[in-house]
Amino acid sequence: MANLRPAQYAGSQTSRVNLPSYISGYVDGEGCFNVSIAPRKTLRVGWEVRPSLSVSQNGDRSEVLLAIQDYFGCGTLRPDRSDMTLKWEIRSLPLLVERVLPHFEAYPLLSGKQRDAELFSAVCLRMLEGEHLEPAGLAAIVRLVGEMNPSGIRRYSPTVILNSLWEMKA
Amino acid sequence: MANLRPAQYAGSQTSRVNLPSYISGYVDGEGCFNVSIAPRKTLRVGWEVRPSLSVSQNGDRSEVLLAIQDYFGCGTLRPDRSDMTLKWEIRSLPLLVERVLPHFEAYPLLSGKQRDAELFSAVCLRMLEGEHLEPAGLAAIVRLVGEMNPSGIRRYSPTVILNSLWEMKA
Repeated sequence: MANLRPAQYAGSQTSRVNLPSYISGYVDGEGCFNVSIAPRKTLRVGWEVRPSLSVSQNGDRSEVLLAIQDYFGCGTLRPDRSDMTLKWEIRSLPLLVERVLPHFEAYPLLSGKQRDAELFSAVCLRMLEGEHLEPAGLAAIVRLVGEMNPSGIRRYSPTVILNSLWEMKA
Repeated sequence: MANLRPAQYAGSQTSRVNLPSYISGYVDGEGCFNVSIAPRKTLRVGWEVRPSLSVSQNGDRSEVLLAIQDYFGCGTLRPDRSDMTLKWEIRSLPLLVERVLPHFEAYPLLSGKQRDAELFSAVCLRMLEGEHLEPAGLAAIVRLVGEMNPSGIRRYSPTVILNSLWEMKA
């Protein structure tokens, strides 16, 4: 194919792409900031808070997810059983705080999804202070999560969790 | 919400985002390079070639599509009837050649979708020379399109089109 210049394909040396900006653009489309809150009897507050950032793409095109994993230097790549996609996911709180949050502060999303990123960031920073382990701190986190765009299924509504914390206090 | 810094939301002045790179990242996830080829009796070759680039997103978050429209200075925004998404689309050959192709040459996609972008570019440049109006030129274009990743439904296979061009020649 004479009209194609193979040297330019998939990461040419002449590319002017700024990788951090590219990653933010990709995450704006395909990323999901999520905070799941699920019952955990072994914790005093009765609920476990699990923040995660995941990015999906069709399994036949893994290049960008590999670039994201390499850029952040963390997270796992695995096939999503529910569909034909591959998913990069980071769940480690210390790594989220150390590597992921600063990225989206420097290279924020241009869409309303940035608000999710900021609520997510606020939750992670509060967790770093251990606030999720105290009823009052957890209640504040639950309210922040309640303002995030629903991503996927929420098994427990903020109201259910807040009521259980209220009962605990009584 | 004390932990959120509103000044940073949706395009802060302190953002280090490189917009062209961000747009390429977004298009890598949500964009679709497409060349449709459909029967058109008024054309001598009997087929019309229509290249287009479209980018979709959930209708409640139109910011990035507006940024893309503003950046390229062309294309239309419209709701996609089939789902709840909004779509930016550019179909004008001169504008594709003048504004879109140079962008993806300077800021190429990092995934295998870049190959689609390059095949798309090759088709547009051939069309600019009028090659799609001659049976031999159209046959070459059909072969290039046949190498593109199928995006959406192909109503007419390359084989069907090539056969009709072959019969024309005979």
